[in-house]
Amino acid sequence: MIGYGFMGRAHSNAYKRLNDFFPLQHKVVLKAACARNEEKVKAFAANWGYERTETDWRKLVRSPDVDLIDICTPNDSHMEIALAAAKAGKMIVCEKPLALDVKQGETMVKAVEKAKLPNMVWFNYRRVPSISLAKQLIAEGRIGRPYHFRANFLQDWTISPDVPQGGAGLWRLDVKAAGSGVTGDLLAHNIDCAMWLNGPIVRVTARTETFVKQRKHAVTGKMQPVGIDDACLFICEFANGSLGLFESTRYARGHKALKTFELNGEQGSLAFNLEEMEYLDFFEYNTGGGEATVDSHIRGWRRIHVTNGEHPYMNRYWVPGLVIGYEHSFLNALADFVQGVENGKPAQPDFRSALQTQKVCEAVIKSGKTGRWEKTGVDVKAVI
Amino acid sequence: MIGYGFMGRAHSNAYKRLNDFFPLQHKVVLKAACARNEEKVKAFAANWGYERTETDWRKLVRSPDVDLIDICTPNDSHMEIALAAAKAGKMIVCEKPLALDVKQGETMVKAVEKAKLPNMVWFNYRRVPSISLAKQLIAEGRIGRPYHFRANFLQDWTISPDVPQGGAGLWRLDVKAAGSGVTGDLLAHNIDCAMWLNGPIVRVTARTETFVKQRKHAVTGKMQPVGIDDACLFICEFANGSLGLFESTRYARGHKALKTFELNGEQGSLAFNLEEMEYLDFFEYNTGGGEATVDSHIRGWRRIHVTNGEHPYMNRYWVPGLVIGYEHSFLNALADFVQGVENGKPAQPDFRSALQTQKVCEAVIKSGKTGRWEKTGVDVKAVI
Amino acid sequence: MIGYGFMGRAHSNAYKRLNDFFPLQHKVVLKAACARNEEKVKAFAANWGYERTETDWRKLVRSPDVDLIDICTPNDSHMEIALAAAKAGKMIVCEKPLALDVKQGETMVKAVEKAKLPNMVWFNYRRVPSISLAKQLIAEGRIGRPYHFRANFLQDWTISPDVPQGGAGLWRLDVKAAGSGVTGDLLAHNIDCAMWLNGPIVRVTARTETFVKQRKHAVTGKMQPVGIDDACLFICEFANGSLGLFESTRYARGHKALKTFELNGEQGSLAFNLEEMEYLDFFEYNTGGGEATVDSHIRGWRRIHVTNGEHPYMNRYWVPGLVIGYEHSFLNALADFVQGVENGKPAQPDFRSALQTQKVCEAVIKSGKTGRWEKTGVDVKAVI
Amino acid sequence: MIGYGFMGRAHSNAYKRLNDFFPLQHKVVLKAACARNEEKVKAFAANWGYERTETDWRKLVRSPDVDLIDICTPNDSHMEIALAAAKAGKMIVCEKPLALDVKQGETMVKAVEKAKLPNMVWFNYRRVPSISLAKQLIAEGRIGRPYHFRANFLQDWTISPDVPQGGAGLWRLDVKAAGSGVTGDLLAHNIDCAMWLNGPIVRVTARTETFVKQRKHAVTGKMQPVGIDDACLFICEFANGSLGLFESTRYARGHKALKTFELNGEQGSLAFNLEEMEYLDFFEYNTGGGEATVDSHIRGWRRIHVTNGEHPYMNRYWVPGLVIGYEHSFLNALADFVQGVENGKPAQPDFRSALQTQKVCEAVIKSGKTGRWEKTGVDVKAVI
Repeated sequence: MIGYGFMGRAHSNAYKRLNDFFPLQHKVVLKAACARNEEKVKAFAANWGYERTETDWRKLVRSPDVDLIDICTPNDSHMEIALAAAKAGKMIVCEKPLALDVKQGETMVKAVEKAKLPNMVWFNYRRVPSISLAKQLIAEGRIGRPYHFRANFLQDWTISPDVPQGGAGLWRLDVKAAGSGVTGDLLAHNIDCAMWLNGPIVRVTARTETFVKQRKHAVTGKMQPVGIDDACLFICEFANGSLGLFESTRYARGHKALKTFELNGEQGSLAFNLEEMEYLDFFEYNTGGGEATVDSHIRGWRRIHVTNGEHPYMNRYWVPGLVIGYEHSFLNALADFVQGVENGKPAQPDFRSALQTQKVCEAVIKSGKTGRWEKTGVDVKAVI
Repeated sequence: MIGYGFMGRAHSNAYKRLNDFFPLQHKVVLKAACARNEEKVKAFAANWGYERTETDWRKLVRSPDVDLIDICTPNDSHMEIALAAAKAGKMIVCEKPLALDVKQGETMVKAVEKAKLPNMVWFNYRRVPSISLAKQLIAEGRIGRPYHFRANFLQDWTISPDVPQGGAGLWRLDVKAAGSGVTGDLLAHNIDCAMWLNGPIVRVTARTETFVKQRKHAVTGKMQPVGIDDACLFICEFANGSLGLFESTRYARGHKALKTFELNGEQGSLAFNLEEMEYLDFFEYNTGGGEATVDSHIRGWRRIHVTNGEHPYMNRYWVPGLVIGYEHSFLNALADFVQGVENGKPAQPDFRSALQTQKVCEAVIKSGKTGRWEKTGVDVKAVI
Repeated sequence: MIGYGFMGRAHSNAYKRLNDFFPLQHKVVLKAACARNEEKVKAFAANWGYERTETDWRKLVRSPDVDLIDICTPNDSHMEIALAAAKAGKMIVCEKPLALDVKQGETMVKAVEKAKLPNMVWFNYRRVPSISLAKQLIAEGRIGRPYHFRANFLQDWTISPDVPQGGAGLWRLDVKAAGSGVTGDLLAHNIDCAMWLNGPIVRVTARTETFVKQRKHAVTGKMQPVGIDDACLFICEFANGSLGLFESTRYARGHKALKTFELNGEQGSLAFNLEEMEYLDFFEYNTGGGEATVDSHIRGWRRIHVTNGEHPYMNRYWVPGLVIGYEHSFLNALADFVQGVENGKPAQPDFRSALQTQKVCEAVIKSGKTGRWEKTGVDVKAVI
Repeated sequence: MIGYGFMGRAHSNAYKRLNDFFPLQHKVVLKAACARNEEKVKAFAANWGYERTETDWRKLVRSPDVDLIDICTPNDSHMEIALAAAKAGKMIVCEKPLALDVKQGETMVKAVEKAKLPNMVWFNYRRVPSISLAKQLIAEGRIGRPYHFRANFLQDWTISPDVPQGGAGLWRLDVKAAGSGVTGDLLAHNIDCAMWLNGPIVRVTARTETFVKQRKHAVTGKMQPVGIDDACLFICEFANGSLGLFESTRYARGHKALKTFELNGEQGSLAFNLEEMEYLDFFEYNTGGGEATVDSHIRGWRRIHVTNGEHPYMNRYWVPGLVIGYEHSFLNALADFVQGVENGKPAQPDFRSALQTQKVCEAVIKSGKTGRWEKTGVDVKAVI
């Protein structure tokens, strides 16, 4: 484990609990936690039960007792660590976004594929049971030809100009460490879900905005220009002919993590909201095969409380009606990854799949500057 | 029209608009409005377009140009007016509750039935399209054997002890004029709907409460004991074996007209809330005939937006998605009444049907005093 | 009244009921209904109580007993009728959108302003009490500096390729009669509300789509190319620096009239949904003046049930908790118009204000073709 | 740990994770799991990491290396185990309900109090952050004089008459093992929350029902009469003068774990629903002290998304907007228990507090048989 921030905690929790809930052949052993600040990483390791700590990730990466490297550092170090880990023959799981930009991402993909190493990017929201169920309903043919996909990721925590940028916990506001603002941090999640559910995005037109132009840097104490996008809105075309609409911001007063999506198709529609993640809303027009029809006077949006044993992942947890939380999406993702290693069917998104999301993000940022429609260059076969 | 209060307005609106929306053989003509206060009734008549006014209801009732008497006065005068109107051979539509008590109600039923006059009590909520749709879904067999029925009618407008009792607009707080408090005013609506949807109520046990023991009388200005029930809760048994739970109060801070019901059956469930009356919530377990089954992973509560042409009454109004309001329930009820007169199939609830609701109310009030289960004595055949 | 379609009914209902609910100096008299089809217009006039009918609108416009002309015809005839009515010195109220295009609109504005005639365009949704309340809360300073405005208008009634275009009731699908598709029909409403609440829109980038490329024409019976936009998505900049996101479609399965908006500001946020129009959702961060603060542990979105006497227009109707419907927005708009005539403070939007919405629509359609950001040319002072 | 069923899992998860999330002086060590079925308890212990297993709880209770006994067995064995554990001087945490009946409960209270041992009953729902927040808002004076408390616990999993009774996983349907049906299993939770939030319940009148009269016994395979209550409804009086209404059933089609409550007071109201446990709904009339008033035109129910650091327990988990789940209520309860042991302020409900809930349950069951109001005999001082 490299990094000990918010994601370090979320991943550590997943590692520790994996075998309590999922019947897998392998047992997770927390070998080592690594970070530059020795005091903090020791406290982190003690809390979560890592056997030892390191302050140099290069050393960790070469450790013979380590099979898997988890990259939870700021985005600007993903590539370097991943390349070293690949060279050392370790399995790699990397926080999203894959990299600072497409070029870095391509280098990373090349490295892990050449080394033939299991690899995954933590787009954990795919494993929220409600979103996994959405994927299943689409696969069952219940939505039919898609027309519209729209998704938001709205937060409000940076409205105050007094929030500093940079440093521990705030590197997401520092364009050097993060690469972009809400686009890489929040929209990347939405784009990953969107392409998983609705296929490749081929063209985009975007508008980005930085509402607060200068912020104090948390480390230097100096006022510095803000380089990230505070907000990003884009319209896009999917390869299947449907239209997409995306918005993300950290200036939507009243929303803390309002990650939503809605898909409208000829046969039905789906809607999701992370703030009440136990639900999937489903409008059924015709039942799956197009043969039977829902009687017109009883049509309506159905709130599916995704907590039954027959719902994705839910047979691993409690009983119908009882909700699980945000953290379980990591647990589910990890279980899929380990199972993929065990049965030879790699869990997705691997680096190559995550690279396609990076391409869309890059096209969005570019369009924000050019004001024109930009092609994404997504590799259709890699959208899995 | 006798009375010019809140219900006088609601009914007048229905009369004036009936022929705009419903294709009936008869045209409504607003002949006369009647009330003791000449100035006020003249203003009322001018506003709504009544041809003339009266200050003596006895005179109105005998008017040869009047075919129908609408009783919108406080409850303590319903019987006297109804008996006179019946004697005069007029059709009668009467505000709910039917009377002050069962004894009065029985006298009224006898009178109108002897005279063979069309008669109806304004339990208008039956004609909210969502509730009418609930009735239809039950009739289609979509609910199956019922287990539970629960209903609330929660308000908060009398919490302040400074609200006076009695006088215009406040006679509902005066036990002499109203007969009871929330039981006759609010629960009567719920009981009417409950028996319409789920059949006769046979036994009840209740708890009534008067939170504010004294209020100033609006007319006399004197502090007087409060005789009505501010709140009433009861448990009941339906003839079909299901259990009922009812609550009404004017002390539920935050609720203005939260009239709700929910019915749980073996095959499905239904729920309604007057404050968002455009919806009916429906949980479908097995589809109607018990043959096909809703796939278990997509089961959920469905919000039916009851605004389509195929929904009850909605083909008379606008287009799908556009809501109608509270007032339309009166319009729908009136249309049914007139159509019943035209085609000889009387609209319900007539006086006899409304008398059964009165019986349940009376048993509830009695149980509130005795603390015991009380039989309602409902005439099963009259629950229609 | 020229035209007898859906809007003809909605307006007629407003005229007939106006004086029942609003204390105005003038009484509405329904003089004449006009349409080419004599049989249909006679039936329409009989239903709503118009004194006479006409089949030639030119004749109607010259009638000396008519003070006000209401234009409810398809969009391609708005200008011609309005110019004639202005010439005849009549007050004019015109269905939205104002015209087929900006050029027509400018001609109309010039005509009514030259003639100094009261004029209004029926952007009725401003008068939904919840939306009027939103305006009030903004004016009270409860939202603060705005960051984001997003609005949808989603329907699903044209998904089937079997729906024909053109003819009575379907002229909205015929580009010659309508000018555009969802942009003029649905987005015009959202743009009007958006600029009323959040000020001028200055630049847009849009994507329009026609999913069904050919439809049978209802009159000719021939398959013809579809010229309208089935869907339209656009991003925009407001003059106040906030960003807008708009989407409208008739291919959003499960939505019948999902007209929504949300405004996020520094001090608070607002959200509305026409399908449950009795609510306005409000997130309060700081109370109005910025002095007192809502305690952080009780912050949340508040559902305001907009049915109290202190809410806009609601003192004209029933009692708290009881909802009014779609049709009342026309009644409220008409009351404002008449009051404006009486007190010399014209109700908005007048033709000039509605022209600004037309400009945004035209820029949107243009951007849909060019794929570029387009300026709207909105006259800031006319956005009222 | 004695027992390995659903609660055995939930508690084990809490023990294992406690120190990851809560900074306590003590570390939990999972010493031993105990159950009669050796094979199953070994699998259970292996899964959760217990050091060893036992098949005789008497042996476990005497183990010198064990400090705390967790009783997760069916209700009919709670007393015997608790008495032995108390005799052995162990801390005891016991699943709810405390015992089969009040008499057993009193014996248990006497034993643990005589031995001066830390003890707690797992009424875990008190520790759902939203419910803890409700407690806090009441303590802050935001609700004022209470008028009404209503609570449901609705499920639908025993509607089919083919569900057997008895045996592993189904002992809750066997009156010998469970003591009662929904009253002890579900209503006990609601009663505990109700008295925690709103004080002692002094009188009740109830109706219980067994819809399916016979079920096959899972172990014997024979049809046997069903002794439990499938449904239970009761009305009650609180010591503070407010009225309560409770309902629980396993026959409410469409509800899996619909545990709700609503409290209406003079100054405000609160509502909660376990199926969306991340929310607490709050209606604010006057702000806390009664001085400032919420402006009447912006009053409404506020949905508090209880996921901020300032909300109870939430600073231990993730970031604002991200939900935790059902299982965390056990984690929070355990943290409170351990902290109570450490700081000498025992966590509640201890056995004596839980005994008061048992008294209400017993009065409810009794009233279900007598049809009369029954006193609960709750010890007011022990309701904490």
